[in-house]
Amino acid sequence: MSEKPVTSRRNLLGGALTAAGAVAAGGVGFGIAHATDSPSAGSDATKAKATAAKAASDQVPFFGAHQAGIATPAQDRLAFAAFDITSTDAQAVQVMLGTWAAAAAQMSKGLLIGPVENTPSAPPIDTGEAYGLGAANLTVTVGFGPSFFDDRFGLAKFRPAALADLPTLPGDGSIDPTRSGGDLCVQACADDPTVAFHVIRNFARLARGTAVMKWSQLGFGRTSSTSTEQQTERNLMGFKDGTRNIKAQSTPDLDDYVWVGEETDQSWMKGGSYLVARRIRMLVESWDTDYLTDQENVFGRYKTSGAPLGGKDEFDTPDLTAKDPQGQPVIPLNAHIRLAAPETNNGQKILRRGYSYTDGIDSTTGLLDAGLFFIAYQKDPRKQFVPIQTRLGQQDNLNEYIRHTSSALFAVPPGLTASGDWWGKSLFG
Amino acid sequence: MSEKPVTSRRNLLGGALTAAGAVAAGGVGFGIAHATDSPSAGSDATKAKATAAKAASDQVPFFGAHQAGIATPAQDRLAFAAFDITSTDAQAVQVMLGTWAAAAAQMSKGLLIGPVENTPSAPPIDTGEAYGLGAANLTVTVGFGPSFFDDRFGLAKFRPAALADLPTLPGDGSIDPTRSGGDLCVQACADDPTVAFHVIRNFARLARGTAVMKWSQLGFGRTSSTSTEQQTERNLMGFKDGTRNIKAQSTPDLDDYVWVGEETDQSWMKGGSYLVARRIRMLVESWDTDYLTDQENVFGRYKTSGAPLGGKDEFDTPDLTAKDPQGQPVIPLNAHIRLAAPETNNGQKILRRGYSYTDGIDSTTGLLDAGLFFIAYQKDPRKQFVPIQTRLGQQDNLNEYIRHTSSALFAVPPGLTASGDWWGKSLFG
Repeated sequence: MSEKPVTSRRNLLGGALTAAGAVAAGGVGFGIAHATDSPSAGSDATKAKATAAKAASDQVPFFGAHQAGIATPAQDRLAFAAFDITSTDAQAVQVMLGTWAAAAAQMSKGLLIGPVENTPSAPPIDTGEAYGLGAANLTVTVGFGPSFFDDRFGLAKFRPAALADLPTLPGDGSIDPTRSGGDLCVQACADDPTVAFHVIRNFARLARGTAVMKWSQLGFGRTSSTSTEQQTERNLMGFKDGTRNIKAQSTPDLDDYVWVGEETDQSWMKGGSYLVARRIRMLVESWDTDYLTDQENVFGRYKTSGAPLGGKDEFDTPDLTAKDPQGQPVIPLNAHIRLAAPETNNGQKILRRGYSYTDGIDSTTGLLDAGLFFIAYQKDPRKQFVPIQTRLGQQDNLNEYIRHTSSALFAVPPGLTASGDWWGKSLFG
Repeated sequence: MSEKPVTSRRNLLGGALTAAGAVAAGGVGFGIAHATDSPSAGSDATKAKATAAKAASDQVPFFGAHQAGIATPAQDRLAFAAFDITSTDAQAVQVMLGTWAAAAAQMSKGLLIGPVENTPSAPPIDTGEAYGLGAANLTVTVGFGPSFFDDRFGLAKFRPAALADLPTLPGDGSIDPTRSGGDLCVQACADDPTVAFHVIRNFARLARGTAVMKWSQLGFGRTSSTSTEQQTERNLMGFKDGTRNIKAQSTPDLDDYVWVGEETDQSWMKGGSYLVARRIRMLVESWDTDYLTDQENVFGRYKTSGAPLGGKDEFDTPDLTAKDPQGQPVIPLNAHIRLAAPETNNGQKILRRGYSYTDGIDSTTGLLDAGLFFIAYQKDPRKQFVPIQTRLGQQDNLNEYIRHTSSALFAVPPGLTASGDWWGKSLFG
């Protein structure tokens, strides 16, 4: 597909997006395509200190074969948002995506998306709240929902088969449509929550007139490690979560289960992945009254150590065949880790990047609205999330204590390799 | 007031709360008053590693003349909750407060409130999600709302005059009563949000049958420094917030404006303080379209440096008398920092400990529900918050861009000085 130069009708970007190196040279602007590679220049001591605080060691490269934020070691905090496109103009969508890409490249380096002090008689280009906080290992990951490929923008022919709408799954009765789906998603992960929030806020601002935020979710604590160098964190049920997760160090697993490869019907998705998000509320008040042994039988792991029942250490492979002296399975038949295990799912695995959340009190019940914002990446949800969750939704002992309250699916294209590129650029050729 | 031994009818605490040193010896339990001074003992490598990760250097002392979490250098994250008491039994309230105090002492040391693995046929005593995360400089600060002193518990005679109900203030039209007020409040601040959340969740659990959480608020990013050693952070409007805040290093300011002293009509409050909480939503979408100069005139500070208009450095004292060549005030008459300044308020100051929050999308408008969860401590709200906010609510240029959406006031008693003590213990004598 050829590149068609985009001319912004609103003078949003100048020529920035069509020229390689544009971000370094020009950046993103509202009317002024001018950003420097450092936060707005200034002379006072505070500014100098804030600038000096930035270190390259807290940066994750934005450009690459795959989008950052998938196999990247999971950062501590999450801000996630889904957007619906309100414009019917494909060019406006391109401008927005290009603007987002340029902004994401800047923010991934710990830079503002443009000067705070551009001109006195214009709004500041960057909203400023993350100024001086550094990159905090920020990653910005963008995906397209199934509805992105409806007939509005002529993109239906590019819809991947693997982006089939998720079927209604067992236990889906509590899904809230107002915080599900979306034309686009943005996953911002960072070790500082203000840095992550800054992304979705500025994306919403840059989208004005073209797209609106449909729903968003903050995750305050990482629950899945994606690197062998990370300790496994605990979810709000107090159990280690994601012990058997795919790790960044396992290239074969990433190739087999995460990155879209030659099998795809849509070549533009090669090197991409599919993101499933599920807001899983935990009925923590009920859970907290459950006996230790019951809790451990629900998960199939010991609470303190995280070892599988019958095992000794967290990373022991669960022995799904072990029986106790009475002939009963040591790991119950309906235990979460048995049903979610690759051994139970034709070998299938998914890469999880979940975060604990709380949104305060459920006003209808007075109970905490808290749980896990589950994010999983995979090569093909039809073969991975859907059958795994079908099994879990039917049989998992955990179902007594959880409710899936939102659901979303996105095609996450491969990484951008140069300034001036944006997600899905080739589709608009 | 004499101490009256409390006998728990529910075998919650054994004799733990009436004996000095009880926490170290016995701790908090549901039916089992047994906690050790380390997370539940175990032998596996993961447990050992988690335990070793705790360092005393990340601990703020729980016991002291004042409650921690006021003049303590502000931690990065906040979990705040208000509770309403549902029991009419004063003894049950004492048991709950005593249990909370024992639990807070444990958690402030980075310890569980009891073993995770107590007995197989009982619920775990600690919910476990913060296990292995250390103390993260946790502080737990507890206060009593005006309604705590109604006629339910015979405490009306102990209500301080300074705990007068807040009057309806200018701009209070958007206050949501469902997230305002409360009989009790708990402010949990820590450098790890899971550690902070763990407090309010476990307090809710320990309160069961006696009190219920009325509302809660997470703060994801600190906006007010309370120490000269901390950098001033930016609020979600991109401006440095709290530059002129009272700092922990200023003992005269703390004595003059924060700690309750001899002037109180209630001796039990000496060494305490009064907490005002206001959830201040920022209309960020509108704000982000405002010109730089307008934004700076609204605050009275330069956006990048944080210096007062006409000044050079952030900590320059604002010159409220300066005029420009046209004879107009350099810092506008309705600028936020002018109206909030001690010079404009008979010298009065307050100690602020605010946090940025977002609760996603406002479903009625599709706009971000984000802003500042304002917390302020002071000696007497009648002389400090009320007149200052009256002035701000009437005249502040910022009012165009903010809405106060919740309001609460609490009397925060002095610190606990020994195990077995609890907040307000003397009142029940």
